[in-house]
Amino acid sequence: MAGPMVIAVDAMGGDAAPDVIVQGAFRAATLTSARILLVGDEKRLHRCLASEPHSPAIDVLHAPETVDMGDAGPLALRRKKLSSLSVAIDQLHRGRADAVVSAGNSAAIVATATHQLGLIPGLKRPALGVLLPSFESDVLLTDAGAHSESGGIHLAQAVFLAASFLKHSCGRPDPTIGILNIGHESTKGPRAVQGAMKLLTETAALPVRYVEAHTLFDGAVDGVVCDGFVGNTMLKLLEGVVGALRRCFPPGVPDACTPEENAATPEPQRWLHRLMRRELGAAPLLGVRKTVLIAHGRSTAREVANAILEAEKFAREGLFERMGQDSQLLEHLAALRGRYTHWMLTGLKNRWRFGAKKAETDKGGEP
Amino acid sequence: MAGPMVIAVDAMGGDAAPDVIVQGAFRAATLTSARILLVGDEKRLHRCLASEPHSPAIDVLHAPETVDMGDAGPLALRRKKLSSLSVAIDQLHRGRADAVVSAGNSAAIVATATHQLGLIPGLKRPALGVLLPSFESDVLLTDAGAHSESGGIHLAQAVFLAASFLKHSCGRPDPTIGILNIGHESTKGPRAVQGAMKLLTETAALPVRYVEAHTLFDGAVDGVVCDGFVGNTMLKLLEGVVGALRRCFPPGVPDACTPEENAATPEPQRWLHRLMRRELGAAPLLGVRKTVLIAHGRSTAREVANAILEAEKFAREGLFERMGQDSQLLEHLAALRGRYTHWMLTGLKNRWRFGAKKAETDKGGEP
Repeated sequence: MAGPMVIAVDAMGGDAAPDVIVQGAFRAATLTSARILLVGDEKRLHRCLASEPHSPAIDVLHAPETVDMGDAGPLALRRKKLSSLSVAIDQLHRGRADAVVSAGNSAAIVATATHQLGLIPGLKRPALGVLLPSFESDVLLTDAGAHSESGGIHLAQAVFLAASFLKHSCGRPDPTIGILNIGHESTKGPRAVQGAMKLLTETAALPVRYVEAHTLFDGAVDGVVCDGFVGNTMLKLLEGVVGALRRCFPPGVPDACTPEENAATPEPQRWLHRLMRRELGAAPLLGVRKTVLIAHGRSTAREVANAILEAEKFAREGLFERMGQDSQLLEHLAALRGRYTHWMLTGLKNRWRFGAKKAETDKGGEP
Repeated sequence: MAGPMVIAVDAMGGDAAPDVIVQGAFRAATLTSARILLVGDEKRLHRCLASEPHSPAIDVLHAPETVDMGDAGPLALRRKKLSSLSVAIDQLHRGRADAVVSAGNSAAIVATATHQLGLIPGLKRPALGVLLPSFESDVLLTDAGAHSESGGIHLAQAVFLAASFLKHSCGRPDPTIGILNIGHESTKGPRAVQGAMKLLTETAALPVRYVEAHTLFDGAVDGVVCDGFVGNTMLKLLEGVVGALRRCFPPGVPDACTPEENAATPEPQRWLHRLMRRELGAAPLLGVRKTVLIAHGRSTAREVANAILEAEKFAREGLFERMGQDSQLLEHLAALRGRYTHWMLTGLKNRWRFGAKKAETDKGGEP
């Protein structure tokens, strides 16, 4: 695409939309050369814009509908075809934008992005990836909340999504990924976790092991895969801890240090600084074909701005496109899907066989 | 029961059993008037005891088998009838002990206790309850890991278990309980969470709402109910945070303060002290008929001692027996179970009806 990048922002998504979103867009516009396209109710957006100083890098695109936080994802997709979210993603789909950022209803974002942009071939669903500080560097948590119920195949595929993201975005060519469990013994954990491990062992594509949450910050693994309900709960619990720590420490300690001070801090304390200063930016929706980032519903203007800058970074790197062309990833996803289909068919066959046998017995042993 | 209390301890359960368990028992024996009954491999236990100074309040009971951490719960129950765990719980069942403490395989403890001691009438399964520090006082997390997969009925019943525990053990006559979710909207969350909310709304027995993990420490609710996999993961994540904070702070700050210093600390900092000083004691297995506590597998001798003292406290209070006679609890459990059975039957009836209709269509519309 010639000219500057265009970042489409769902201006109506988020708890304090559109005001905070517009403020965030203004903040971002002063920091980037990308154009920002605010999608939403034209009148309200122009009113918000009027209260801000003029910025030439912001455009507005009208969308008459708004997805509410309480809307079910698939329903929002079907019934609100002209929502700000849907129109923003449509711009991305048509190549008129390079990335989409939304702080809205995440189930609706996942459903709309999956439907309009499509997924990497072989993938069953996308997953949200969030980087958390660890003592080594960062640890990727996937799925951080795209879906609140996962089967074994979803967790197994998320392992490869995480590996590909770490390879292409964080420069870790050989990342180690763990599956979150509540013990390292093979008998522990719910069926989905055990199913994922079985699928991964049978396709034998990557050495994966169980990790427990208390080792998350040790740097033992580069990425941890879990169900979106669990991942989102972990993120929110950490948010609660950070909030509580802020109340415990006198203001300014150890929260408000500059990035230079932060870099100068020795490692043990630095982890705390990084955790406390961690901004709820935006999480990439891994597995869709184009750059989509989901920001926290309670994002501040500063966090919205960060999300826009991150989206620009991902779009410039072409991360989503590179993941879609990652031949290793495609191979692994296909292998997992094949194995899974084999399981399903075997299951059906067995059920049919036992069902048939049962019917025979009922009929008094007739063949 | 005349004479002192007897606390049966599964001496072979735990990562560093039996040594650490024996050390913990010794430590506890110096602090309580209760007798401690160590159950396990006689020879090994006598060898451990020989290295400790003589204590008259400790007895040994032989059990030839040991449940391993990797054993599946129901299998351990069926195949290892003479395990230290099973023998200890049998002593409790026969009235020869007043409480059982085990740091062993929690799935096996849950299965064995459920089978040998029985549950409160109407209850489908027990749940582990753990108290965490909040800014108000404490917040009860249930289930903290008894089961790694839960349906709506299990979560709904756990709400009443939590309420009854808070009433009888923490002196909160009117506790507020929340169900953990990743949003407060009714469309959010997995089926089990939505099912639990529906069951509770239909029986209309207690005002319950969704809570998110970032508000856990705010004191907004007295108890939070979640699936055991999620609860256990949250506990372990907090453990990881505490470990990381210990690395961040120079030794002794703010960890090593005496209880008096702790009490003298103003509230915001006190939360941190309470979190950091929180000992991984033992969690009561709520819903079984007699006092069973599960300690962390990695418990230190000090934590085993704490667990024994806590078990004695619960046994002395008669908490488990009082919960078993709590008429409100029994009523609510029965109402939930009735409602659930009604659902199941309606589901079956509908399936039968639609199945029958389908069969009719297949036969060309015959009645």
